[in-house]
Amino acid sequence: MLEQLKEQVCEANLELPKYGLVTFTWGNVSGYDPEQKLVVIKPSGVSYEVMKPEHMVVVDLNGQVVEGNLRPSSDTPTHIELYKAFPGIGGIVHTHSPWATVWAQAGKGIPALGTTQADYFYGEIPCTRPMTAEEIQGAYEKDTGKVIIETFQDIDPLQVPGVLVYSHAPFVWGKDASEAVHNAVVVEEVAKMAYHTIALNPSIGSMDQNLLDKHYLRKHGKNAYYGQPKS
Amino acid sequence: MLEQLKEQVCEANLELPKYGLVTFTWGNVSGYDPEQKLVVIKPSGVSYEVMKPEHMVVVDLNGQVVEGNLRPSSDTPTHIELYKAFPGIGGIVHTHSPWATVWAQAGKGIPALGTTQADYFYGEIPCTRPMTAEEIQGAYEKDTGKVIIETFQDIDPLQVPGVLVYSHAPFVWGKDASEAVHNAVVVEEVAKMAYHTIALNPSIGSMDQNLLDKHYLRKHGKNAYYGQPKS
Amino acid sequence: MLEQLKEQVCEANLELPKYGLVTFTWGNVSGYDPEQKLVVIKPSGVSYEVMKPEHMVVVDLNGQVVEGNLRPSSDTPTHIELYKAFPGIGGIVHTHSPWATVWAQAGKGIPALGTTQADYFYGEIPCTRPMTAEEIQGAYEKDTGKVIIETFQDIDPLQVPGVLVYSHAPFVWGKDASEAVHNAVVVEEVAKMAYHTIALNPSIGSMDQNLLDKHYLRKHGKNAYYGQPKS
Amino acid sequence: MLEQLKEQVCEANLELPKYGLVTFTWGNVSGYDPEQKLVVIKPSGVSYEVMKPEHMVVVDLNGQVVEGNLRPSSDTPTHIELYKAFPGIGGIVHTHSPWATVWAQAGKGIPALGTTQADYFYGEIPCTRPMTAEEIQGAYEKDTGKVIIETFQDIDPLQVPGVLVYSHAPFVWGKDASEAVHNAVVVEEVAKMAYHTIALNPSIGSMDQNLLDKHYLRKHGKNAYYGQPKS
Repeated sequence: MLEQLKEQVCEANLELPKYGLVTFTWGNVSGYDPEQKLVVIKPSGVSYEVMKPEHMVVVDLNGQVVEGNLRPSSDTPTHIELYKAFPGIGGIVHTHSPWATVWAQAGKGIPALGTTQADYFYGEIPCTRPMTAEEIQGAYEKDTGKVIIETFQDIDPLQVPGVLVYSHAPFVWGKDASEAVHNAVVVEEVAKMAYHTIALNPSIGSMDQNLLDKHYLRKHGKNAYYGQPKS
Repeated sequence: MLEQLKEQVCEANLELPKYGLVTFTWGNVSGYDPEQKLVVIKPSGVSYEVMKPEHMVVVDLNGQVVEGNLRPSSDTPTHIELYKAFPGIGGIVHTHSPWATVWAQAGKGIPALGTTQADYFYGEIPCTRPMTAEEIQGAYEKDTGKVIIETFQDIDPLQVPGVLVYSHAPFVWGKDASEAVHNAVVVEEVAKMAYHTIALNPSIGSMDQNLLDKHYLRKHGKNAYYGQPKS
Repeated sequence: MLEQLKEQVCEANLELPKYGLVTFTWGNVSGYDPEQKLVVIKPSGVSYEVMKPEHMVVVDLNGQVVEGNLRPSSDTPTHIELYKAFPGIGGIVHTHSPWATVWAQAGKGIPALGTTQADYFYGEIPCTRPMTAEEIQGAYEKDTGKVIIETFQDIDPLQVPGVLVYSHAPFVWGKDASEAVHNAVVVEEVAKMAYHTIALNPSIGSMDQNLLDKHYLRKHGKNAYYGQPKS
Repeated sequence: MLEQLKEQVCEANLELPKYGLVTFTWGNVSGYDPEQKLVVIKPSGVSYEVMKPEHMVVVDLNGQVVEGNLRPSSDTPTHIELYKAFPGIGGIVHTHSPWATVWAQAGKGIPALGTTQADYFYGEIPCTRPMTAEEIQGAYEKDTGKVIIETFQDIDPLQVPGVLVYSHAPFVWGKDASEAVHNAVVVEEVAKMAYHTIALNPSIGSMDQNLLDKHYLRKHGKNAYYGQPKS
């Protein structure tokens, strides 16, 4: 069942330590099959060193395990909320990658300060509001998803494929699990550079909107001219 | 004698360079057998590259060498004080890992600023008071242990398994030597992130107590639901 | 056609990940044949892991592809402008290496603060002015080159072989592709050290001009005495 | 001639890239034979990847090459001055290791802020005064040595085995080439930690003198008890 998606999700999970995004098991990747409305996700607390496609857990949009012997990641309800709310995304990554987590802990979005961010994110990578005591004590993981969705009321999640959860860490997504990991690497890199940019020049504001448009749109959208033509 | 514990302690010592926690021989791990009341610890000043289980030294709670041809770590009296005072801990790690040492040198505890810390430490990782001239000039290593114990008068060492010794470096513990190393990696990671979080947002306070409770308690205690069920 | 140059350019491109200057495909190297007035450059968006000399694209100084099946780097017009304006340079590197990019995002040149920079750059590594809306919306990549050239009105590009493009990232050059990569490594290293030097001592000014002269001129120019004699 | 010393010096040079202390050829190690009054030093500008013992150059205390086909490091006159002035040192390392170079560029000595430094350096690692125009334009490398020696008028170079040259980088020494490299690693590590300690707590002063004494003297001097007994 969903063998190909399990392989993709397992491989994407294994890319997290390769790119230095995780310590121990502090991260998880899921993939989504929009036709069957099923999520494939990493099991909770399993070491990357022994992880195989058959360990991946299949859950439905109610969070019920449909296949798999292991307990799914404790963050599964967050992933499910995002798949339900953001049509077009097919993969989600959650890590505690250090630079992005620094911004999340500081409670600040990562402003667009240069073309590296503009090549992937059409503006600031936002930070959610703090969660309330009720949200934390109740359906915490599900409500984490809801707070993320609230943050994107006026932002297109396909143009800004990531968020920082206040006092917590990033969630990043993409059209599939592999692209989500790619975007998570970008978030970590721009988080590191933005931190130092602001320290070096505290009065620097966000980048020129024209430059943001240029870089985002030369890689995305119908007039893109970066990379090789899709054949 | 205590062959299995020697292997565990040796293996835990070898994990220190693997996780980037030590330069040269700047670190030591011990393990404790509560039934025989014996400590197994790294020998002093021996290179990790040549370290083997048979090099481990067995000492009793008076610091007397019970087995082994090498001199035990000069920090042995500190380890012994902690094993005597903190029932339930079975492994201790001392390193000069750089980010944790930065906080120790600054004389500040690491505040709980996000869920990464809350997943392992139920609050701030404290820093001891400075040691007095008498303590330093007298039974220095033993008194280092006593100052740590004094720091935990109102803190449960099982819920906050680590400390920074003022002007010195961290001591971290766990239920065994392996968990102690795991916690030492966590201390280093949260030390790095907390440093940058405060630089980015000096007015950020400690994290919401509700969020701290949620993350600590979903991994620890009888209602934990993170990871796979213990079978 | 230009087989040797293609090999050099491919090899220089492969050095970018080796020296940690690039994430994913965020960088490109070109080489120039001044006799044939042809540029050999990396194709756009191709992974370093699969890159081979035969993938390199040959373009003329009008940007027309003369040989190669792939689309050249989208930054090709920038490279062409520099080869036309700066006689004597034979290789150009563009990366988003993080420390240099931090300075570019901060909109500041890297001051000469020590002999490491003086050994390679005869003074500050400048930052361009911001590009105008017209430049960005028009022939953006070509105008990036023009803004770089404008920055060097009063600077010898052979003595200061690199620049930071405002809100973007560095372009670095040399007598050939290999030297350009070498200089790009230097830019990244001095960017990192200058950042921390200024944080540690905000009142430090540029280094003594005598020391700058001494270090630059003992390695460059006709009285150089560093390294082995060229035979 | 001096085959054993050449091997030691070559090996010590090769440890520089292994410990991350050098980029390209930015470093050199020498060793000294006090009986023959000869210095063995790395050749200038030779890559570490191809370096072998037979490349090492032998010079006398006048700087004359006694053996070897390559030009010695351009910093050779600095090394010679130190061997002449500091009896008991048998190896010298010069690098541009980044954290130590940051302090040198900032023109500041590295204060003793914790036991890591106290284990090896009996106090602050000083920074020289700026060199004068006359010194820079004249016998620059020799005068670099003289300025270092001036810095140690009231400091024992055996107890503080390293220095930062203003606007330049560190020189570090030891009883032989291997110990000099060891101490250079320590300088880099304490430079990194001191930088961040001061940023985290600008009001922290130097460490308690009692603690400095304790840590330095438990490893050095006749009452040392760290490590295994010398047999």
